[in-house]
Amino acid sequence: MKHQDLIFSNDVASHLDALVEKYNPSKLFVLVDENTSKHVLPMLVNESKTVANATVITIAAGDTNKDIESLMHIWTQLVEGGATRKSMLINLGGGVVSDIGGFAGATFKRGIRFVNIPTTLLSAVDAAVGGKTGINFHGFKNEIGAFCEAEAVIISTRFLETLSSEELLSGYAEMLKHGLISNVDTYNRFLAKDVANIDTDEMLQLLEESVMVKKRIVEEDPTEKGIRRALNLGHTAGHAFESLALQRKSPIPHGYAVAWGLVVELILSHMQLKFPSIELTRLATYIYENYGAFHITCDDYDALIEFMRHDKKNDSANAINFTMLKQVGDIHIDCIAPEDDIKTALDIYRDFMHI
Amino acid sequence: MKHQDLIFSNDVASHLDALVEKYNPSKLFVLVDENTSKHVLPMLVNESKTVANATVITIAAGDTNKDIESLMHIWTQLVEGGATRKSMLINLGGGVVSDIGGFAGATFKRGIRFVNIPTTLLSAVDAAVGGKTGINFHGFKNEIGAFCEAEAVIISTRFLETLSSEELLSGYAEMLKHGLISNVDTYNRFLAKDVANIDTDEMLQLLEESVMVKKRIVEEDPTEKGIRRALNLGHTAGHAFESLALQRKSPIPHGYAVAWGLVVELILSHMQLKFPSIELTRLATYIYENYGAFHITCDDYDALIEFMRHDKKNDSANAINFTMLKQVGDIHIDCIAPEDDIKTALDIYRDFMHI
Repeated sequence: MKHQDLIFSNDVASHLDALVEKYNPSKLFVLVDENTSKHVLPMLVNESKTVANATVITIAAGDTNKDIESLMHIWTQLVEGGATRKSMLINLGGGVVSDIGGFAGATFKRGIRFVNIPTTLLSAVDAAVGGKTGINFHGFKNEIGAFCEAEAVIISTRFLETLSSEELLSGYAEMLKHGLISNVDTYNRFLAKDVANIDTDEMLQLLEESVMVKKRIVEEDPTEKGIRRALNLGHTAGHAFESLALQRKSPIPHGYAVAWGLVVELILSHMQLKFPSIELTRLATYIYENYGAFHITCDDYDALIEFMRHDKKNDSANAINFTMLKQVGDIHIDCIAPEDDIKTALDIYRDFMHI
Repeated sequence: MKHQDLIFSNDVASHLDALVEKYNPSKLFVLVDENTSKHVLPMLVNESKTVANATVITIAAGDTNKDIESLMHIWTQLVEGGATRKSMLINLGGGVVSDIGGFAGATFKRGIRFVNIPTTLLSAVDAAVGGKTGINFHGFKNEIGAFCEAEAVIISTRFLETLSSEELLSGYAEMLKHGLISNVDTYNRFLAKDVANIDTDEMLQLLEESVMVKKRIVEEDPTEKGIRRALNLGHTAGHAFESLALQRKSPIPHGYAVAWGLVVELILSHMQLKFPSIELTRLATYIYENYGAFHITCDDYDALIEFMRHDKKNDSANAINFTMLKQVGDIHIDCIAPEDDIKTALDIYRDFMHI
């Protein structure tokens, strides 16, 4: 897997111009969605001489548009825009844009260079880094895709002011996860912050620390054969919450689902691996205070377990696979939890969430 | 790039069964086209216990069906057949099947294992080996795809008896090319054969020798940044002949186009690099005697040059890029030929072809 250049800076335009100068693409394309087209592209067009001259490709916003139709639209625009093997694609947006744009870049003429410029905290800390690209297909998330790293990722807090506090908290949950799988020091630093009142410089520093946790793990296991599954902490239960919310027709932000999923999976870690209860309580309290609760009753347990069973991370259809912690930073992948344990964990989750 | 297991054997079924046992896939799928479904699959179903129990996916035959619709059909069949990350896909067919099946395998759930079993000489010696996968898009050949090697390729002469002599000759042209870019000994051995009268054991041996030339080059440069372009010998002019034939609505087999392309590009090699005229004459005579001639007049020159100019291998739209030889085995990539030289080469080609 090629080396991925991670740039942490709020001077996005100069870094981008320098990259374009370095790679000297035959033609430059910028992928945006309807939101970043309106709120972010104009800033960059003003500041960057390369973006000002690029061909813009626009897709509809939202995860439901991360589909084969949008992908074919991007491919077609590349063909019609005269892209060659030496062209370059800039993915300017959140996770949807870097996922689908990365996959388009990975597959156009068997691969052209692409650069991710994440515009949400969630994509900066997660989707834009690590080479997982893809689209949803036949109702399954990221069913079609490729492992292919961006040539470079420019991570900034420039565009965060355009985000709601809900979007900030959503991204911050993945940062907490990175803290949990790294070490006590980093984790404590993340947990000590009040997300609503971090200034952009401080946030950029935290972002760098958080992204480097992911980068180190991805470098060790780019195609998720083993230790990369550490990054799934909170996600088996989290995806189940997300799916249940979708079924209830009141979707929840991905990061919120991960935050609540972290609580459930650290309860399981406590039950199976004796993850310290004091740390568990500290996290659950932080999550409850900042994210509130996702409401469930014991009538939801079977549905939640069914969602967990169908998670892509399970190699067989019967076992339910979790990443667990023995301590902060002490990762155990491929832990199997029996249904009864999961139900007990959901009971305890409800206690923590005052439900 | 992962190690690709190349197996040269006419005992296809046992080798396949051994691979399935080794990888123990959660589910096995076999991709065929309408031809291999009829003529090849029944043989394997009889002999292999794993193929007998596999889920069969069928696509329409022919290069015009190497498109996004067929690809989506394969993805859908994988989803509906309950494929997981640990499933395996067998691509049983010619170049169309291994190209599109390889791309489906490379992208389903970001990559599942696939094995190629080429059923034509051309795909055995070329498409099935080396990891170039993809589909045609918007009228461009292999416009969308990925570099992704099959877990294994089982190369046999078992299925060659189902082929016409035209199909055999088409594959043999790529073998001659491999001879030309390897060394005089290998090349001489290929040139000494009468394709119409090789027995299957002898052909299997020649196939192995030829495929190993490609394998060594691909290992050195899997994503075609440099020396892999050696494999393009004969293909810039060859593709132009193919395109012209298509425009005339009388398509020619790919290998025939390569054979005639080799003659043109060795003439250019003689003009620019002093490739020995005695070798040039020997090749041109062999091609003329076995493949006949592709008829062109000087009225076709501009169209041919225009096709060459639009070849995907050109980084810029103006230069026309060739791989040339100074001697058999002495490869020079990225040689630029001016239009006048190309026209002269086409004149000499016509002399060799008695046109």
